[in-house]
Amino acid sequence: MSAPADHEQPIRRATVVGTGLIGGSIARALRERGWRVSGVDSDDARTSRALELGVVDEVGYDPEAELTFVATPVGQITDAVKDALAHTAGVVTDVGGVKASVVDAIDDPRFVGGHPMAGSEQEGVDGATADIFDGAVWVLTPVAGTDPGAFTLVRSTVASFGAEVVEVAPERHDQLVAVVSHVPHLTAAALMRLASTRAEEQGGLLRLAAGGFRDMTRIASGHPGIWPDICESNRAAIVQTLDELVAALREMREVVDASDRSRLLGALGEARRARNTLPARSSRPSELVEVRVPIQDQPGELSGVTTLATDLEVNIYDIEIDHAAESTRGLLVLVVAADMAERLIGGLMARGYRPTSRPLE
Amino acid sequence: MSAPADHEQPIRRATVVGTGLIGGSIARALRERGWRVSGVDSDDARTSRALELGVVDEVGYDPEAELTFVATPVGQITDAVKDALAHTAGVVTDVGGVKASVVDAIDDPRFVGGHPMAGSEQEGVDGATADIFDGAVWVLTPVAGTDPGAFTLVRSTVASFGAEVVEVAPERHDQLVAVVSHVPHLTAAALMRLASTRAEEQGGLLRLAAGGFRDMTRIASGHPGIWPDICESNRAAIVQTLDELVAALREMREVVDASDRSRLLGALGEARRARNTLPARSSRPSELVEVRVPIQDQPGELSGVTTLATDLEVNIYDIEIDHAAESTRGLLVLVVAADMAERLIGGLMARGYRPTSRPLE
Repeated sequence: MSAPADHEQPIRRATVVGTGLIGGSIARALRERGWRVSGVDSDDARTSRALELGVVDEVGYDPEAELTFVATPVGQITDAVKDALAHTAGVVTDVGGVKASVVDAIDDPRFVGGHPMAGSEQEGVDGATADIFDGAVWVLTPVAGTDPGAFTLVRSTVASFGAEVVEVAPERHDQLVAVVSHVPHLTAAALMRLASTRAEEQGGLLRLAAGGFRDMTRIASGHPGIWPDICESNRAAIVQTLDELVAALREMREVVDASDRSRLLGALGEARRARNTLPARSSRPSELVEVRVPIQDQPGELSGVTTLATDLEVNIYDIEIDHAAESTRGLLVLVVAADMAERLIGGLMARGYRPTSRPLE
Repeated sequence: MSAPADHEQPIRRATVVGTGLIGGSIARALRERGWRVSGVDSDDARTSRALELGVVDEVGYDPEAELTFVATPVGQITDAVKDALAHTAGVVTDVGGVKASVVDAIDDPRFVGGHPMAGSEQEGVDGATADIFDGAVWVLTPVAGTDPGAFTLVRSTVASFGAEVVEVAPERHDQLVAVVSHVPHLTAAALMRLASTRAEEQGGLLRLAAGGFRDMTRIASGHPGIWPDICESNRAAIVQTLDELVAALREMREVVDASDRSRLLGALGEARRARNTLPARSSRPSELVEVRVPIQDQPGELSGVTTLATDLEVNIYDIEIDHAAESTRGLLVLVVAADMAERLIGGLMARGYRPTSRPLE
């Protein structure tokens, strides 16, 4: 994307802990944008490989790192974040698929929980590419104690990768990924095993599996190694969602068994409408508007505004806080799509804010 | 593809009953290969549109039709096949997604049941294209009473569309499509409704749905109108498969609830292996090699070799076992792509086999 920083600007520095597919891709995205990146991994062979591939500039914690990304497996994140916080005075974020357990365990204003909703069936640093976050949603889960400056740094950095940043409370994130990621994965695996068993009984006829079945079971081809940690960390939400899915399938069974055509059409029609309104993976709209919101410069104000935007389904493409010197007031600047600005302004006014807006040149 | 038949050859004639997406695509595929195609539909507007688009040459049953394809909705197929048999002395085949109910109802040597495993989220004749069958599996379900000449005509015609023809008993087809098509569809719909409900409760966060969820629910975006007939015609197999899936998901729930890491890894690993051995939708490579492997003719030998091929990512296009008479030895013949043969041979030799190879003419 942008050229490396020229000699006028200080070089920005980051550490990536866990140099697998996601960590490696973050390192590549940072380096493409001029950052100097150091890599840390519990496995020396992985950092060596990352160095050899030019994914990182050096190995080890960079004490000068402005930002450290923790991209270890889910079960190791809490300890890795604590280590990272101890090694630098900078900001630390993670990329784990479950958020409440980590965010609850780390009580530090310099930590911002995160989860890029991007992945691949590939594994390891050899599959790392700088562009996997382009157009992907990157969830951030700041809490009341999060330093607004730390949040803004993480947000602007991952937005520079082309990601759409969505801010969500950690528990809400975990509830949602149970239904859009974890349970679908377990279901794809269950379907795949069922089909495999039946095909074995009936003579290897999985050739009958057409595109729809391939699409549905594609995620089951990923490496299983990450799942025990994820299922353990997000157990309650996964168990609840599996119960709900089982109930829904038992209902489907009754409908089919009774040949209840109208209920079947109703259920499938509802699913179709929901599927067709699934938000598209999108890039920045061409017309953007800056919405400027005077706020009290205090914890909670920032997350109050960004959570409102999320609830209104208004996507924030950029965010900035201007702190007025010697004052408890600040100015929050939000960049949103031109056609969504009025909705956001309406919501903000309803909450007692006094926003103004102007087109972004 | 090929040019229309020249004047030396008689023009081949076909009727397509039901000029929707699949019927229209068959008509286009036939016309591209020089056939004269007549279209029949209960809805005059659809035949007019098919005529206007050049999908068919004329409207109405062609009494001279050598072959009639019935591509109506599943619930109308039996009657439509009977009509077609009454209108011509030629061969009749259908493309319905459920086979036993139709095949059982039609006792005529001129009828061959069929089911192309190709589809699209599109609907109607406007989406019809000649190439949707290229590389797809086309199931045919001849029974004891089927005329061999009728079967050969249908087989060669659909093979000329580029389809891979697979012959299966009707009941076996229905069992398999319940698990690779019907229940996956109902499951995708159930998951989509669940996600939609949860997102509504929690503020429209379906933006968190990444590629895996989109892949899994894509089939739920299709038109629900075809499903009541399919579910009614294949009720027993669908209900049984839903019961099995519910049992599998309840087992997953117990495993997650108990944090039973090794059982979870076992289940997901099994699903992954099955997914990775799902036969690819692909045309056969142009250069094929026969790898001949002498084996002990005993259980486990075959799966040992094919699992090795899978581990080596060598796709097997054809497989045959020659059992030596009066001997415990056999010869396994594997057909693989020419550029993968050496990899397979290397792997086999490393396991103590003595394979030989020769190009397939």
